[in-house]
Parts: sequence; C-alpha cells; structure tokens
Amino acid sequence: MTADYPTFYYDFRVYLDDTDAGGIVYHANHIKYMERARREWLRERGVAHYSARDDYQFVVAKVDIDYREPLLMDDLLTISITAKKIGFASMDLVQHIYRNKPHDKYHNKQAIEENMPASSARIKLACVDKSLKPARIPANLMAAITSVTS
Amino acid sequence: MTADYPTFYYDFRVYLDDTDAGGIVYHANHIKYMERARREWLRERGVAHYSARDDYQFVVAKVDIDYREPLLMDDLLTISITAKKIGFASMDLVQHIYRNKPHDKYHNKQAIEENMPASSARIKLACVDKSLKPARIPANLMAAITSVTS
Amino acid sequence: MTADYPTFYYDFRVYLDDTDAGGIVYHANHIKYMERARREWLRERGVAHYSARDDYQFVVAKVDIDYREPLLMDDLLTISITAKKIGFASMDLVQHIYRNKPHDKYHNKQAIEENMPASSARIKLACVDKSLKPARIPANLMAAITSVTS
Amino acid sequence: MTADYPTFYYDFRVYLDDTDAGGIVYHANHIKYMERARREWLRERGVAHYSARDDYQFVVAKVDIDYREPLLMDDLLTISITAKKIGFASMDLVQHIYRNKPHDKYHNKQAIEENMPASSARIKLACVDKSLKPARIPANLMAAITSVTS
Repeated sequence: MTADYPTFYYDFRVYLDDTDAGGIVYHANHIKYMERARREWLRERGVAHYSARDDYQFVVAKVDIDYREPLLMDDLLTISITAKKIGFASMDLVQHIYRNKPHDKYHNKQAIEENMPASSARIKLACVDKSLKPARIPANLMAAITSVTS
Repeated sequence: MTADYPTFYYDFRVYLDDTDAGGIVYHANHIKYMERARREWLRERGVAHYSARDDYQFVVAKVDIDYREPLLMDDLLTISITAKKIGFASMDLVQHIYRNKPHDKYHNKQAIEENMPASSARIKLACVDKSLKPARIPANLMAAITSVTS
Repeated sequence: MTADYPTFYYDFRVYLDDTDAGGIVYHANHIKYMERARREWLRERGVAHYSARDDYQFVVAKVDIDYREPLLMDDLLTISITAKKIGFASMDLVQHIYRNKPHDKYHNKQAIEENMPASSARIKLACVDKSLKPARIPANLMAAITSVTS
Repeated sequence: MTADYPTFYYDFRVYLDDTDAGGIVYHANHIKYMERARREWLRERGVAHYSARDDYQFVVAKVDIDYREPLLMDDLLTISITAKKIGFASMDLVQHIYRNKPHDKYHNKQAIEENMPASSARIKLACVDKSLKPARIPANLMAAITSVTS
C-alpha cells in the first residue's frame, strides 16, 4: 500500500538535558523526538507495543534527515508522522518537526503546508522477530496502523 | 568489611552530547560518568557483569552527590572509585570526578589529595536477583571486588 | 523561610531512550526527570528562566536520592516538588517520583501520602551570577517561588 | 575537492546509558558516536573546535544512515571517518561503525573492507557564523582537514 495515510501530530517540549553547549538541541535528539512521537502514534491506535514485544518489534533500518533550523530550550514542538508505504515486513514514514506550533492549528492540511519544518526525515522501520530476523507485521498491528482515523 | 579498598581511576572525555545550553555538563551526567567508571572497575577485575546478569545484577539504591565545579566541553576527566563498605548484598562506594587530571598522576595518594574534585558522591549499590529481590553478592564477584590489587 | 511551600505536581511519560538494557529507566534519568519538573514549576510561576539567564541561573549544588522501585517503559509518572527552605542565594527542595499516578489524584495531601514514591530526593539549588559566583535570588523570582498558590 | 581523504579511526566503548530496554544501543546514539569520532578527528588535526567557536561552528545539515546490525552493551566499537567532498562552506563525510574491531587492525584499507559495518552514514556539515548564517570554512581549518596525514 503506497497511498498517504492520515498524518498524526504530537506536541513535545524541549528541556535542558536535550540541549548542548552550542545552545541548541543536540542534533541526534531530533531523531529521538521522532521516535517518541511514533510511540504516541502507536499508543493512540491501541498498540501496546512493548507488552507485545516478545513476539516482534520494530527496529529502525534507515533514517534520512535534513536539518533546517535549530530547536531551542523551552520550544514547544509539534512532530508529525505520515505513513507513506506499508509493506509486509517494513514501513516507510515521513516525519517533520515544527517549532512553537501547537498541533491543533494543523488539523487542516493547508495550514501545515505553510510552515517550514525545522527538520524532516524519511524513516524505514523493519519488523523483526525475537531473534531479530525480518518478520511479517502482525495482522492486528497492520490493521491499527492502516486505520483511516487519525 | 569496612576498610578502605584500593582506589581505581578511570579517564573519560567530555563530548558535546553531555553538555547543555548552560555551557556545562548537564548535572545528571556526573552520575552517568560515575557508573561508566564502575563498569571499567569491574571489567578490570574480570567481572563480565552483563553476560552474568541472568542471575544477579547491581542496582543503584542511593546517591548522595555534591557538585563543586562545572565540567566543560573537551575536559579530560579522571573518575575515582573507592569501596568503603562491602556487605552481603550491598556495597558503599565513594567516587570523585577530577577535571583535566590524567589519572597516571594519581598513583600516589598524596598527589590526589591535593586536588579538589569537581564532584563527589557516596553511592550504595544493591545486589538483586532476576526478580529484583535483594540477593547475596556471588562469591566470585565478592572475591574480585575485594581483591587488593587496584 | 523554612515552612513547607505548596507542592507542585507534573506528569511525565517514560520513553524508550530513557531506559537501559536492564529493562528499566537508567538511574541518572530520575534526576533528569526531577529537573524537567522544576522547569515546569518555574514556568507555571511565570519565571522565564532561560531568557533571564544572562544575569543569574540556578545550578544544582547537591542531590541526595533514594531509589526504591524501578521506572519502566511507557510508565506515566507524577513528579512532585516541595520547597522546604528558601535562602538568599539557595533553596532546598524535596522531590518524589510516583509511577502511573496521574497527578490529578493528588490534589489532596492524604491521597498522595498513601503512595510510596519510586524515588525521592533532597536537592539544593544555588543561585549564581554570570561568572558562576553565588548570587542573591532576584526579588521577582523570590516572589514567584514563594507564592502560596500552587 | 572530491578526492577521498585519508580515513580516520576512533575506538569507543558502549556503556549502559546508551542502551535501551530492547537490549541494544538506542538508534539515535549511533549518530552521537559518529559526532564524538568527528571531534577526535578534529582534535588530532589540532583544531581546538570549541575555543574557536565564537567565529564559526559546524552544524549538521543532513544525515543519511543505514542500520544493519545492533550494537550491544560492552561492545568495543571502531568508528571511521572519510571526508568525501570539501566545499567552501560545507563538507560531506562517510562514517561507519564497526563492532568489536579495534582500529589498529584497519590501518590497511584491505582489512577494513572485509568487514561489514553495523551502521553507515553520509553526513553533510555546514560551516556557519555566529548568527548561524552559512560561512566560508576558515583557511587554517581547511588546511587541517585536507591534510593528507591521517
């Protein structure tokens, strides 16, 4: 399936421990924020990811990230997730981080497209079994992820 | 046993990801550095801590830390460990962090006592079993820890 | 002033990046969570801490923390702050971390005292000027902190 | 300049705080390790990066990373850096992370190419001035980076 799935938005605050001596959020933490947003995205879809992890888990296979603008201490961020392609054992997502833009504003597509994200990434997640071998995404999880309600 | 055991020293570099927007090492990372030094202390004593963790592990029960001086980006630190009291199921350690003092200088007690540590902590570790219940420290580990060679 | 000030509560979610291979939240991150809660406590009192930091900042001078129970992935935490003693250039706080207890439940003292915190700390913050020398807490900040409304 | 510059290798140990509850190094920390190696690469070339940062600094503009194999607690890593393209205001690097391969083994190209890295990234760094605007890489830094001695 390669259609665009509904975009999910999650707000997140920047705290001191995520900044560095350059006065901005340490670059690797953008990727951490994106992972946190994915956790909330799954939680909203009823996926008790970690309690189910005996059987399978998602691992990050690839991240292509562009940094445009620094994130600063005390920023309130909105992080978006749009599933782009969901395969049998992997999925491709696009994620953006917006600064100081509470996500409520974005519930129409037009508003969000007027804003330039501080960073944007294309992320491939692979589903693996207990021995870290590629595994088919379980049917209930697939149903939750591909659900049209955002 | 409450005698002083030989002090172990470990050098460690400060990197950008451990600093914060205040321009100094984020305070919780002092405690992280102390944990890293304990890992090297056990490694030097032949304790394959993590491979053995099915049966027991050490958890941190208490930390009392005093901060005196900030740690800065690029600092080369020396972290010390002195076991103060080793019981059946727990041990008390004193750890100091020194700035820009390669540990080789400290192999006599006198030199080290001339320096004021940037931070100092008293730390209690508890030995626990698989279900996180208090457990007796295994004999081989006890032998390694109480070994007089530093 | 040594009276008990009103307790402030803040909820916080545990994410994967804060856990470790032992399956629990890495111990130094308890201290990080407590710092994040202090930031929200100041924010609620109108203290734009970081924008004002050219003139002064708070640094952590001392932390005495007891760990009782591990924090786990996906836990929803409540973190409390009670100022115990506020001096000219420093303040002493007591902070607790509670697991899976949304803070709304705690708005009467009795309910909160029935719960055992997963960890508890006494923390001394020192006010310092630009050159990290001890400084008097500015009057407006003092007024905000000692405000009786929680 | 688009020739391959000499590859730099740096060894690094995995500690508990970098792992997650999945039992492996948290994926964003691969990018952190790569940044630490770049710091050592500059240090070896005599670039006192942080003391000079009033005038310029490097920021990460783009990271494309592929993850192949998890990094585990206690792993001894070798991280490589090869500059691929050095422009007036930016540079492109390729970095690999190898598990349990002390870097001494790699001082001939052949040995290193027999090993599959656990992760590989192409990273673009941009040189910016104090106001985070693109800036020409200073001549002395350019000389240090393009130096043929590895």
